[in-house]
Amino acid sequence: MKTQVAIIGAGPSGLLLGQLLHKAGIDNVILERQSGEYVLGRIRAGILEQVTVDLLREAGVGAGVDGHGTVHHSIELVFGGARHPIDVHGLTGGKVVTAYGQTEVTHDLMEARKAAGLVTIYQAANVQPLDFDGSKPRVSYEKDGQSHVLECDFIAGCDGFHGVSRASVKDKVTEYEKVYPFGWLGVLADVPPVSPHAIVYGNSERGFSLCSMRSLTRSRYYVQCPLDDKVEDWSDQRFWDELRSRLDPELAGRIVTGPSIEKSIAPLRSFVAEPMRFGRLFLAGDAAHIVPPTGAKGLNLAASDVKYLSRAFIEHFKDKSPAGIDSYSQVCLKRVWKAERFSWWLTSLMHRFPDTGGFDQKVQEAELDYLVHSRAASTALAENYVGLPL
Amino acid sequence: MKTQVAIIGAGPSGLLLGQLLHKAGIDNVILERQSGEYVLGRIRAGILEQVTVDLLREAGVGAGVDGHGTVHHSIELVFGGARHPIDVHGLTGGKVVTAYGQTEVTHDLMEARKAAGLVTIYQAANVQPLDFDGSKPRVSYEKDGQSHVLECDFIAGCDGFHGVSRASVKDKVTEYEKVYPFGWLGVLADVPPVSPHAIVYGNSERGFSLCSMRSLTRSRYYVQCPLDDKVEDWSDQRFWDELRSRLDPELAGRIVTGPSIEKSIAPLRSFVAEPMRFGRLFLAGDAAHIVPPTGAKGLNLAASDVKYLSRAFIEHFKDKSPAGIDSYSQVCLKRVWKAERFSWWLTSLMHRFPDTGGFDQKVQEAELDYLVHSRAASTALAENYVGLPL
Repeated sequence: MKTQVAIIGAGPSGLLLGQLLHKAGIDNVILERQSGEYVLGRIRAGILEQVTVDLLREAGVGAGVDGHGTVHHSIELVFGGARHPIDVHGLTGGKVVTAYGQTEVTHDLMEARKAAGLVTIYQAANVQPLDFDGSKPRVSYEKDGQSHVLECDFIAGCDGFHGVSRASVKDKVTEYEKVYPFGWLGVLADVPPVSPHAIVYGNSERGFSLCSMRSLTRSRYYVQCPLDDKVEDWSDQRFWDELRSRLDPELAGRIVTGPSIEKSIAPLRSFVAEPMRFGRLFLAGDAAHIVPPTGAKGLNLAASDVKYLSRAFIEHFKDKSPAGIDSYSQVCLKRVWKAERFSWWLTSLMHRFPDTGGFDQKVQEAELDYLVHSRAASTALAENYVGLPL
Repeated sequence: MKTQVAIIGAGPSGLLLGQLLHKAGIDNVILERQSGEYVLGRIRAGILEQVTVDLLREAGVGAGVDGHGTVHHSIELVFGGARHPIDVHGLTGGKVVTAYGQTEVTHDLMEARKAAGLVTIYQAANVQPLDFDGSKPRVSYEKDGQSHVLECDFIAGCDGFHGVSRASVKDKVTEYEKVYPFGWLGVLADVPPVSPHAIVYGNSERGFSLCSMRSLTRSRYYVQCPLDDKVEDWSDQRFWDELRSRLDPELAGRIVTGPSIEKSIAPLRSFVAEPMRFGRLFLAGDAAHIVPPTGAKGLNLAASDVKYLSRAFIEHFKDKSPAGIDSYSQVCLKRVWKAERFSWWLTSLMHRFPDTGGFDQKVQEAELDYLVHSRAASTALAENYVGLPL
């Protein structure tokens, strides 16, 4: 089999790239280790920057987010027992974020790919990018016990943090990493969100909390927890009690509880691999970088990588220009590091650190106080939250 | 002897407080462990916020700073081999800082105190604040081998980090501290400053550097150095070479060198003691808090403490109101912690940390890049630099 761009990974990055390339008349095949159902079952981020929404529309899959996404004009910080709204819309000259689950994004992209008749090979085993240092890269894989080779012009590694793409260049990357001394216990429940118009970030003596949503009938809540906590230790009741204890009384009183339909503990990690291009192999999204979820940047960074990468391929195939390909890594990483900084900062600001001495805790409180009272500092938060200009 | 306010310490805090109280008709006596010459010989900060300049004028000692201070409309950040001006004046709606050495401030205040005929007891030994929990505090001391007691209504502890005032309440304070893994090697030289209109902060691979000034003919330069370096290891030539190596080539080429008239290594420390009031004893300035010098906040925080404290005493004696006295600690600490945060942040941003992993270094570079390209972030820096509103 032969294609122009072999895409490894059928998550949102790979699917979005495939769709954008298809729109530009560039042939592509996606290889995915898991089944489509497995990919759809992963619960991930749900806050989209304008850049990401625009890109979904460009890819012809904007109907879902336009019809079912919930626009947020503001976020809210809860600390010291009081609520502090940040008017993101007003502070950024009209920019917003949109709540729309990654699962829905993936679903919309899968449907569009199916409708366009594009090839996605699910449950492809032992996928291996090959010969990407030369001019004729290939991807080998096995399907139903048979070995196959996909010949291509380029390989896009959209296969996440644990994927084979970065692993295949592991001697050539420089890795930067930060691990945080806590995790997030997340609960998904079919209850109306307590704050349908603003994501709520809480920092209380008991730790971080987050009130977000997937839709007007499905809520996503989180509380910071020790890394060695087990999900089994957290009954639904204990979770709801803990969440309420970390919010201001008025907000806590309005939380509607219900049975969890998903409950999990995730560690928080900052990670960047440099560079993001190796000859004719390109890393995009989680394959190259991870952010802690606090800033809601993971999916959005993947989308901007894909935007740069699709543009680079289009420039190559249509304009016969290597400019986009040559600058891909540098252009992506500039944006990636700013998002890494923001995600690290917001994580540091909103969590309680077990090993933090008194000085750092007092500085955190002073920063929160400064942040909500300074228009400049609030604006800096807001402009990062909606996404810095491309 | 009897007075209304016994002031311990004849540095700028104590002298400024004495002058403001005198203007308001409140009697005060200053006790100082050292000689006047010794106090004047200490080389310290030199960047005054508008609040501080206004307070000097209010105290009747504005002529020096008005005649000889140099107004700075901007600062400059040097990193990645390039210079990035921050238009502090423009970003803050017209606010500035003024370069005028602490030595000169102290000198002006000493002269004014002498002219007003106010009592300052230098070389007072074994100064001890007493009975400040009750209504009749006293300060005991020895002078020329004789024991004395100064009776008073209030005691103001303006005697610095190592003074007796905080030591006398050491069982009652909560202390917050952060120590930094480097020091500043500072050189004072009678050469024209390389940047007479903007303080220059440098962050290079070799570490932090700072180009500041005391006047148009006297420069003050610093380079970050290991804590265990000895001044004797640093010839003037080595210092100038090191300073130049940390700046961009154009700026480095314009440095005018000359023999150092002072050269010293100082550790960097963040420190806050809470509360700042103990009955009728009040701590002000370095007696209660220390900032690393990066943000130029030390003298300015002392000045705002003194402003609040003088107002509190005036309210007590003139208006018979305890309001200022009762709120003194809380009001000061709110401002102190914001300045501590800013000083910690600017120190973290501009220095190289020996134990910093690759991730933190990359985040520092991303933050510098973001800072100089975001108007909001630049404004947040600028508004802190000129001093947050009282």
